[in-house]
Amino acid sequence: MHFLVIGGDAAGMSAASKVRRRRPDIQVTVLEQTLDVSYSACGMPYTIADPSRSIDELVVRRAQVFREKLGIDLRLGHTAEAIDRSGKRVTGTDAAGQPFAINYDQLLIATGASPCLPDLPGFQAEGVMVLKRLQDGRRIKEYLGSRPIKRAVILGMGYIGLEMAEALRRLDIEVSMLKPRAELLPWMDRQLAAVVQEELEANQVDLRPGCPVQKILQRSGELRVETEQTDPLMADMVLVATGIRPNSQLAEKAGLALGPAGSIAVDRAVRTSDPHIFAAGDCADAYHCVTGQKTWIPLALRANRAGWAAADGVLGSPAELPGVAGTAVFKTFDLQVAKTGLSRAEAQAAGFEVRDVVIVSSSRAHAHPGSSQIHVHMLGDAVSGRLLGAEMVGREGVAHRINAVAVAVHSGMNLADFAQTDLAYAPPFGPVWDPLLTAANQLLKRL
Amino acid sequence: MHFLVIGGDAAGMSAASKVRRRRPDIQVTVLEQTLDVSYSACGMPYTIADPSRSIDELVVRRAQVFREKLGIDLRLGHTAEAIDRSGKRVTGTDAAGQPFAINYDQLLIATGASPCLPDLPGFQAEGVMVLKRLQDGRRIKEYLGSRPIKRAVILGMGYIGLEMAEALRRLDIEVSMLKPRAELLPWMDRQLAAVVQEELEANQVDLRPGCPVQKILQRSGELRVETEQTDPLMADMVLVATGIRPNSQLAEKAGLALGPAGSIAVDRAVRTSDPHIFAAGDCADAYHCVTGQKTWIPLALRANRAGWAAADGVLGSPAELPGVAGTAVFKTFDLQVAKTGLSRAEAQAAGFEVRDVVIVSSSRAHAHPGSSQIHVHMLGDAVSGRLLGAEMVGREGVAHRINAVAVAVHSGMNLADFAQTDLAYAPPFGPVWDPLLTAANQLLKRL
Repeated sequence: MHFLVIGGDAAGMSAASKVRRRRPDIQVTVLEQTLDVSYSACGMPYTIADPSRSIDELVVRRAQVFREKLGIDLRLGHTAEAIDRSGKRVTGTDAAGQPFAINYDQLLIATGASPCLPDLPGFQAEGVMVLKRLQDGRRIKEYLGSRPIKRAVILGMGYIGLEMAEALRRLDIEVSMLKPRAELLPWMDRQLAAVVQEELEANQVDLRPGCPVQKILQRSGELRVETEQTDPLMADMVLVATGIRPNSQLAEKAGLALGPAGSIAVDRAVRTSDPHIFAAGDCADAYHCVTGQKTWIPLALRANRAGWAAADGVLGSPAELPGVAGTAVFKTFDLQVAKTGLSRAEAQAAGFEVRDVVIVSSSRAHAHPGSSQIHVHMLGDAVSGRLLGAEMVGREGVAHRINAVAVAVHSGMNLADFAQTDLAYAPPFGPVWDPLLTAANQLLKRL
Repeated sequence: MHFLVIGGDAAGMSAASKVRRRRPDIQVTVLEQTLDVSYSACGMPYTIADPSRSIDELVVRRAQVFREKLGIDLRLGHTAEAIDRSGKRVTGTDAAGQPFAINYDQLLIATGASPCLPDLPGFQAEGVMVLKRLQDGRRIKEYLGSRPIKRAVILGMGYIGLEMAEALRRLDIEVSMLKPRAELLPWMDRQLAAVVQEELEANQVDLRPGCPVQKILQRSGELRVETEQTDPLMADMVLVATGIRPNSQLAEKAGLALGPAGSIAVDRAVRTSDPHIFAAGDCADAYHCVTGQKTWIPLALRANRAGWAAADGVLGSPAELPGVAGTAVFKTFDLQVAKTGLSRAEAQAAGFEVRDVVIVSSSRAHAHPGSSQIHVHMLGDAVSGRLLGAEMVGREGVAHRINAVAVAVHSGMNLADFAQTDLAYAPPFGPVWDPLLTAANQLLKRL
């Protein structure tokens, strides 16, 4: 039995490792396009912000460990180019440019996602960069270390863009952020998004939403970012963080069914439309635990879990994964921003009769020093009474607090029941009525 | 219609306010023994730790506000002494020592709890204090401000004792802590309790568990705490924090049914065995949401909720409260300590086939600077697969993280389902696998 994995990041290495740990008699081969496996990609903005740290600190486990400790045949620099489903064979090119062909009994596609690069002039210039793979992080760090960088332009205002805005400001680099759409964090309630905007502006980030880029010109070592609306922006570096798309081309070419956003469609046991092929990680879709519908939410935890589920399938004991809640958190400057469940637009699109509320509460108890504001946006369904999701913004007590809502969303809890949950209280950590309970109590009045 | 409330703290004032807000035609009288209503008692240790702050900052709403804004007939310094249930009448003594008698249609007993004072010689000495009501906090603060205090002895090692140990150490006072039982935090897993013990010792708290006090002697302004095991301890101040007991004497004398620990027995709508009398707050019992059995867990959030539930009953639309999960958190020095659901002993006593696990994880992602250890103790039932509870200790990310387990416990979630919840991840806030998920995954292997 030969289990072949395309892609040696979170999902791929989780699957490969679990199969080898449980069944050392199964031969496992992993094809990885880059030279890196098993690293904490999300840590890159923080490593970039600190000149004393190396990107390679983010490597969790080196290739050698997978080979020697787990007996995984890990082939770096190997690019898979085609899947022959009837012949159960993958072909491609190795690091030396030589073709290879490998047969499989079971295949996992764990090819991840790639940054979206707009098809506009100048995006291939030297100082124009993306941040997705470890080699992207190395390149940015080398670039920052090799010349004086005074001004950076970030295209996009998603998680990566906002984390990198903080990182570059910490290096005392002037930062401008541009995006085509008019709204910052369009999925979020406007009142909460305004808090994020204030934080960015307080940290001298020059925000320009509603400002699509036309082209980038390189002139005597400087980059000139041209837009319709404004004078050109001069920069020493441009970070393109305009979203990612699933790496599903290989699957598509092989005729596998696709899901939302062109991700690879998988069932609850992460099997594709071909019973011998699994897909897991950022390249694959998932069920949303609130709507029951397919969604594409590329996040690290799901990638690990889906990798394990693929391993379970290979091991002959397929496990069905429950849906994802879309829980996410990021930090930008001193602000924690978190969400779980459905946004207002998502809930409306899914047919719920949405009621929502925004409340402002405190991060600490009445009169406790050091308290700051916590904003909560909570959503419920007027028909079923169900809690649909929440968003939170604050300087403390947001990142882990959102998990209470995530668990409620997973269990299909009603708002009335959530409002009665016994949440922890001590003055340094919140008011007697936790901000989530205050939001739930207020929202109940609108159902 | 006359609604009479005995006790003007969290439960009493919540009930009185809600009734007046909804039905201004209902006459509401509150009898409060002290001169304080509506304050954040849990904030006292932090106020005591800071000489620049006054205890009175903890007052949330003054008596005048309740009288003028809500039209509540709030009588301070009024001690209720007897309830004549057949005559529906409460008698007692007012601040001037004059007897009073008040009739009611509906009565709420919200008399709270009082510190347990051992019946031993010397506990009435001037420097021997408790910390429960606002006047206790004022007394401690005045005492600390009026003379040089170098050494304090704290009797008891519960929440209050541990919070006050931190407060007194911050004031550079030497602290010794004594208790009769051998274990620190006996409800907690030993490995987690050891982390708390290390933190206390690292902050020069002299811990003496297994050391019952025999008496306290006062000698030329100094207190001498005598024990069986050790040489006497000399102190300028002794804090007695050996637990609290429900103030149910009035209810007991009136023949009302009592529950666990001598608290007043109430149904899910917080009605006592007399249909015209409610009880709410620290004096009353509750159902535990895991066992379905009666329990006595005196905490602020429940007091507020039970007060509202009593108001609902008075307003003719009784609401049933779901059970409590026993969620609690406290801070001692730089450590956050939290729990929810059942402890091992509670789970065993309730007849569950308990399996548990302790894991050590990180507060931040791999290689993220500033990470510290998080210890999780998680418990499940081998028969049903249900998640029964958890305890956590750590320097960050504990206080709010426990709420995810609290919600799971409320919804009766299985460990297998909890292990699949989509919890938030970003490098500054935890590893990809949240410590709670790691604990759940490990515990699943033992079920």
